[in-house]
Amino acid sequence: MSLKHAVLALVAERRGYGYELVQRFEERVGPGWQLNPSAVYPALDQLERGGLVTSVARRGGTNRSPRIVYAPTDAGTDALETWLCATDAPSEPVRADVHLRIAFARREHHLALATQLATQERACSDLLARYPRPHGAGRDTTGPALVDDAVVTRLRAELAWLAQARATFERDAG
Amino acid sequence: MSLKHAVLALVAERRGYGYELVQRFEERVGPGWQLNPSAVYPALDQLERGGLVTSVARRGGTNRSPRIVYAPTDAGTDALETWLCATDAPSEPVRADVHLRIAFARREHHLALATQLATQERACSDLLARYPRPHGAGRDTTGPALVDDAVVTRLRAELAWLAQARATFERDAG
Repeated sequence: MSLKHAVLALVAERRGYGYELVQRFEERVGPGWQLNPSAVYPALDQLERGGLVTSVARRGGTNRSPRIVYAPTDAGTDALETWLCATDAPSEPVRADVHLRIAFARREHHLALATQLATQERACSDLLARYPRPHGAGRDTTGPALVDDAVVTRLRAELAWLAQARATFERDAG
Repeated sequence: MSLKHAVLALVAERRGYGYELVQRFEERVGPGWQLNPSAVYPALDQLERGGLVTSVARRGGTNRSPRIVYAPTDAGTDALETWLCATDAPSEPVRADVHLRIAFARREHHLALATQLATQERACSDLLARYPRPHGAGRDTTGPALVDDAVVTRLRAELAWLAQARATFERDAG
């Protein structure tokens, strides 16, 4: 996953410190990624060790958690362009834990599966309710709007399948 | 990802050695997971170190690559049931590298993005062409058939979105 590159893109857009980058990530990519905010700090460390970003200042914060502001290096700017221009990124395999569980389940597991699928349906519905996101006026919103479409399309398909699969297991278990 | 548990389930079904487990995984879960066959060996090592499987025999092979046959331990059988009965598995976030790239792309990257999306469309079509899989007659095929439905539903939704996103970027870049 290219979280590292996304963080690099945020820093290149405007220098910033960890928490601020998390907020801008959310704003740009949306809730579908379910970013764990703490994942941004290792990404920044990795980028700094690789010479792609550098810490340029400290902006407030506390002694225990100083707000270190990052900016891209020339190598970082180049790496970002390479990532954005890549045409050979592999497509994502269709991997889901629940598919494995379903593939190996026996009849006595069907009730537990139905319960799990119901939980996933709720999670998908909750996430779907957060779309469409408001997009700032006057900016190029092509990218973020297409990402929203991707997430909404996928969630709707997932919900259709989840309902069908849950009904199958409920019938079998009943 | 619970590849480890899937391998445990295969071993519990019938003792087996690495390559044979890979074949049975493919047969049970299908091509959607795009399992890298070499991933099975670290999973077996991890299961053995955790006391969930044990190597019980050697069946042919060569000195350089002996075929070590694995069987589940009692702890492995328990762990498998726990996994199959779990109702609290987290739902999968909607994460795709290409979404990140799209979220951060500027106009000059749109042509490269259109090319990448076309590649992904071909990959999705190729994978979709491998469904539905033939399922062995006389066995309970509920699980594997539902996994097929999940993959097909997701691929169709992905193809619809890919075509729309590609058209957007082609128009912008043209």
